[in-house]
This record gives sequence, structure tokens and C-alpha cells, in this order.
Amino acid sequence: MIHVALLGFGVVGSGTAEVLTQNKSIIERKVGQPVSIKYILDLRDFPDSPFADRIVHDFNIIVNDPEVSVVAEMMGGSHPAYDFTLACLKAGKSVVTSNKEVVANFGTELLTIAKENGVSYLFEASVGGGIPIIRPLREDLSSNNVTAISGILNGTTNYILTRMDNEGASFADVLKDAQRLGYAEANPAADVEGLDAARKIAILAAMAFGKRLNPNEILCEGITSVTAADSELAKEMGYAIKLIGYTTRMNGRILAMVSPRLVSRYNPIHGVNDVNNGILVNADMVGQVMFYGPGAGKLPTASAVAGDLIDVMAHTPAGVISPVWVDAEPDQIADPETYVCRHLVVLDAPKSAEAEISAHLDLNAPHFTEGRFSFITEELSEAEVKAKIAEVGYPLITRIRVL
Amino acid sequence: MIHVALLGFGVVGSGTAEVLTQNKSIIERKVGQPVSIKYILDLRDFPDSPFADRIVHDFNIIVNDPEVSVVAEMMGGSHPAYDFTLACLKAGKSVVTSNKEVVANFGTELLTIAKENGVSYLFEASVGGGIPIIRPLREDLSSNNVTAISGILNGTTNYILTRMDNEGASFADVLKDAQRLGYAEANPAADVEGLDAARKIAILAAMAFGKRLNPNEILCEGITSVTAADSELAKEMGYAIKLIGYTTRMNGRILAMVSPRLVSRYNPIHGVNDVNNGILVNADMVGQVMFYGPGAGKLPTASAVAGDLIDVMAHTPAGVISPVWVDAEPDQIADPETYVCRHLVVLDAPKSAEAEISAHLDLNAPHFTEGRFSFITEELSEAEVKAKIAEVGYPLITRIRVL
Repeated sequence: MIHVALLGFGVVGSGTAEVLTQNKSIIERKVGQPVSIKYILDLRDFPDSPFADRIVHDFNIIVNDPEVSVVAEMMGGSHPAYDFTLACLKAGKSVVTSNKEVVANFGTELLTIAKENGVSYLFEASVGGGIPIIRPLREDLSSNNVTAISGILNGTTNYILTRMDNEGASFADVLKDAQRLGYAEANPAADVEGLDAARKIAILAAMAFGKRLNPNEILCEGITSVTAADSELAKEMGYAIKLIGYTTRMNGRILAMVSPRLVSRYNPIHGVNDVNNGILVNADMVGQVMFYGPGAGKLPTASAVAGDLIDVMAHTPAGVISPVWVDAEPDQIADPETYVCRHLVVLDAPKSAEAEISAHLDLNAPHFTEGRFSFITEELSEAEVKAKIAEVGYPLITRIRVL
Repeated sequence: MIHVALLGFGVVGSGTAEVLTQNKSIIERKVGQPVSIKYILDLRDFPDSPFADRIVHDFNIIVNDPEVSVVAEMMGGSHPAYDFTLACLKAGKSVVTSNKEVVANFGTELLTIAKENGVSYLFEASVGGGIPIIRPLREDLSSNNVTAISGILNGTTNYILTRMDNEGASFADVLKDAQRLGYAEANPAADVEGLDAARKIAILAAMAFGKRLNPNEILCEGITSVTAADSELAKEMGYAIKLIGYTTRMNGRILAMVSPRLVSRYNPIHGVNDVNNGILVNADMVGQVMFYGPGAGKLPTASAVAGDLIDVMAHTPAGVISPVWVDAEPDQIADPETYVCRHLVVLDAPKSAEAEISAHLDLNAPHFTEGRFSFITEELSEAEVKAKIAEVGYPLITRIRVL
């Protein structure tokens, strides 16, 4: 019998209890022995829940119980989730989690502590909800040098951008509707300003390159300034605007950034719509593979937490090999200003300015409507494109990087 | 130091040697010790290869060398690949393979022998080339009951169908071109008649449901009778014709089949084009996830073989837990005649026959061009749709299942 404790009985925590109960027989067949949820830590009581008798309010009961060998942390937020995770690992308990904030902020330390204590720290559910991505990167693609990862990593913003694209609606209107429908939170900042995606791309960069970047220091541009006109223009040009978490290596340094990008209809993630996530991995041997599915939600995320739990439990007591990260040194991090890509530029300029503008910038797919002169540039760094736009002299309405 | 032997130095074998050499440092970091290719078994000599000194022609040298703990079988065909695999497992060596024919035909026995001998038998490369699918099914999605898998599993046929769709070209013309370009073999039967896809869906069904179906007994319809007119019609209706390997459970029995299917543009695998593969997994907890990428090719397939090698080597001597299959009993296999889906039906009938035909069959999206009366039926079993078409009395030109 393996005794599991769940930390947090919110959406993902209750989903995980549901998965472990509903699919008990297939899970126990894979684990090779009975599995019991011994404790569920939450501040609240749940008198009507079938798990009411496992609810505890004191973390010490769990960490001090030698019978509990595996803990699933699904509390969200950095504290006390990080502190409880640390205490469990030090007490020789493996921890699996869906908490991207803790993994992105404290992953290096927690993985080290896990290793020192001969236990595992797994976090498949922290990126892409139910989509397998962490384990495939770690195992299936382990013979590869990853060259780049580009991902639609946030379902809320993808839902908003998909509706803007389909309906020509404004960001503000769709956001309001998304909040009404429960696809966006009352305070949507972490989603729409890109921090949620920044945490996830930090985790993916660390998986790909072995080095963790501080998610709060990653260039992070959200979608609040994307307009209906931008969305329509992109569509006419054969692109869709998506919020993309992107990481690659430039001259040995790691670049990670989150920003709206124009995604061509020939890119496999162009078709990743609504609340779905899609993660495209480029690597030297395999070429390009994509992982697609529900990036959030109660049961999809719980599916990933339970998958990690099964992995740990099936390998008890030998343990699962966790990844090893180090924190990136400042000179190992690329300056996003030096990152080179094409840019969609929209200037407040008349059609007659074409010759004048083209003296400074390549004008691919030039497009003109009512005072908006739009085109896609050649490959330029941030500094270069800004300098050239300044040289041209017409006011900038929009600039969006092309993926 | 871990000593590896490669069986077969063809496309995948030489690719695997290349991956192990080119990415030696990242692989050895993950394995935790040096890795050496000690032998490469092939009938031919390769005097100009950097591996010329490892080539051996006698399998006994490998199986009798206690230093060799891991073997990668990439010979293709059932014999002697199966026999060599069996001998290696019995000799206490783990085996990884890209050989779908051996896995689909002999997987149950080989997995049992591996278990009895405390070694592993892994086959990520046998389905979907470089795409992670076997390990995600086994580990990431292990808390789920899989409900269905639908996959574009053969790159050659997908290339042909994509070009037919794009260009309105005939099957015969595109096949000829594909052969010229090296995308189809001189004898394309195993691809275009669906047997390759049948082996892969047999492996996926066994991974999903734990029971192996004989790939030679799976309903297998290829793409040789798909016409340019069918392809164009499907496109006009908002679908693409794809060769789909499909497996599900019906009343506790396992259904597996390969056939051309109409795939709606709202299905994530609609956009899987050219030689790419895409595998859609439906499962009770996660919902729907898709895996996409290069389904064949030297380095992509070698990437998967090498991933399995690393997994085995990193877990030496504890071993990797291999899946467990049993062979399906006849009463555990569903009769494809009872499988219910919608069908695209094209009859040789005039437009004026609409009322007459609709007395027998629902006519969704009816479409008429020059003696071809086309429509999509309600959900019907094979027997039902055949009976109704017979009742209608007009000659059948085409019938294609809708996914």
C-alpha cells in the first residue's frame, strides 16, 4: 500500500482525487500495489465531500507521517507551497506538482534537494496542463540538442486571440465575455500580461538547456495592446496573432521571451485555437515535433499530476531520475534586444510614402488601408527595427514580431 | 562504460550510429557513463564508414559477448530480426527497436521474455518515427482510460493524399512522382494498401488496451481507390481524405481498422500534411491530445531509437518497466462490420433522385455534379449503410467513412 498526500483541494487537487478514485483499478495495476489518499491539506473543510475524512489543516501531520511517501502539491502560489515542498523532499518524500510558479522560481533548488534526499520532484502538469511535454523532452527527445521551443502556453489568451481573429472583436469586449464564461479570471493580469506564459517558457528552457532563467526577468509582452485591426490585418496576410513563449540559444546564450507573434498558416501551431495549447519543439535530430491539447482545466491537469504520481509510485523505492538544472549566470542569458526576426510594422503613413519608406526597410507584403501602411520587414534585431522606424519618421501604430 | 550493439546498418541503423556519435556528450551526461558502439551487425561491409571496424557478420559474436548489455534492432522484417531479439533478451540484454513488424507480430511474447529475464524491450521508434507517442501513452497518460486513437501513421500515403488534395492530381500520377522523389518505394504495396499503418495501429491498440490484435487480421483498406474527384469533393465539403489508423473499444471489445477517412477541418489532424504523421489520443481524463511530427526518416527515427537506448542505459541495472500485453482472444475483438460512423456516399444518380434517395438515407451536405450525387449519411454500421445503398438502387461510385 502506498500512502499519498494531496496539498490543496482546489480545482486541480479535487481533480486529482477524482482521477485517483475513478481510475483506481488501472492505476493500481500500473503501480503494482494499492494506492491510498491518506491526507488532503486545505484551509477549508469539505463536509459534503467523499474525502471529508482525509482533510487536515496542519501540514505537520503529513510531513511527520513516515507512511506518506509521495505528495502532490497543487496549492498554487509560491508560499507556503515552496516551503511545504522543501520540507517534504527533506523528509524523504517524493513530490509531484502542477505549480508552475514554484517550479519556475525554485526548481533548481528543489531538484537539487530531491536528488540529495534520493527522492523525485516531477512537474509534468506545470506546463501545458494535460499535454505530455516535460517527460517527452526529458526522455523521448533526450538524444537531441533542442534548438528552439515555441509554444502557445496560455489558454486564456489563446481563447481571446482566437475570438478576436474569428469575430473581428476588440480585446476588451472578448476579455469581458471570457470572464463571464469562466475562461478568464476576475483579475486577468497574470494571463493577459504574459507572466503565466513566462513561467512556463522558463520551465521549458530549463528542460531544454539545463539552465533556469528567472521568469520575472524574461522579456514579457502581453496581448493587451493587440487590436482588432491588427488581428484582421494578420489574417489577411495569412497569419494569426498568437501569444508565443519562445526560447532558443544564440551564440551559446539562452534567449527566452513571451510576446504576441504573427504565426504563419504553414506553421503547425497556427491551427491551435481556443483554450488549447500547442508546443513546437525544434531539435537537431528529430527536426520538428508538436504537442497539442488542453493546456488547463481540472481533469486534464489532474491527468498529468496523476501520471507523475504513478511514475513515482511504480518506481518506489528506486525513484525516478529527476532533471538537473543550474541557475543561469548573467553571461549565459541572451539580450532580447539582439534577437533577430521579421516584424510586422504598421505606420501612420499615406500610400504615397511607399518609395520613401522602402529606402529604409524591405516592404514584404505591403498593405494599405485608411492611413495604415503595413508591411513585414526583413530579419532585424529590436535595435535595428526601432532605428529604421525612427529614420522613416512616420508614427508607429503597431509592431509585432513574426515567428 | 556501456557497450551497445546495433543490428542493421541501413537507414535507421546508420542514423542511430550518427546520433550516438554526434550527440555523444549530451547522451553520456544523461546516461551517467561512457557509451560505446561495440558491434554493428550487417551482411555488408562498409569499408569507408568510420564504423568499419565495428561491423560484424556473425550474430553470435554479439549475443555471446557478456559486455554487450543493450542492443538496438533496426533490421526490418520479421526474420531474423525476431529471432535475434529473442536470443538477446534471453541472454539478459535489453533490446530497443524501430521494427514495427516484429513488435506488432511478436510483441506479446517478446515483452514477456524481457520481463522474465529482468531486461527491457522498448519500441518508441516503431510508431510515428521521431514523434514521442509510446512513452507518453505509457507514462504521461497512464492515469487515463484511453477511449480512442486516430492516427495518420504513414508518411508516404499522407504525402500522396496531400498532393492529391492540393493539386487535384490522380493517385497514379502522384504515386509515380513520390517514387521518383524517394517518398514511396518501388513496391509501394505495404504503404498504399495500409499494412504499414495496420501494424502501427496494432501497436497503439496494444499500448492503449493491453491486448494485441494480429495486424494481418485488422480491417485494412488502402488509398489505391481514392480518386481525384473524391479528394476534390471532400475539400469542397470542408474535409480532407486521410488514411487513418483507428482503434477504440466497443462494448468491451477492441476495434482496430485502417481506412481512408474524411477528416473535418475542425479536427486537429486535418492540418497534418505531407510526410508528417499526427496521432490523436482521446482519453477519459485528459480529453484530447495530439502528437505531430516526422513519422519516418533517418535521423527522426534514430532520435527515437537513441531515446530508448538512453532510457535503458540510464536505468542500468535496475531496468525500465516495459509494458505488458496479452494476445486478444477472438471474443475480445470487435467486428468492424458493427462499427458505426457517418459515411460519404457518392451515387451514380441524377439530381432528381434526391427525394427518392432521402426516403432511405439522411442526406447531409448533398452535392451534385455531372452524374455524381454525393452526401454524408447519418451514423450507420457497415451492414446498415450497405443495405440502404442497395435499397436505393443507384450504382455506388464511392463510399468513404467519416472520422
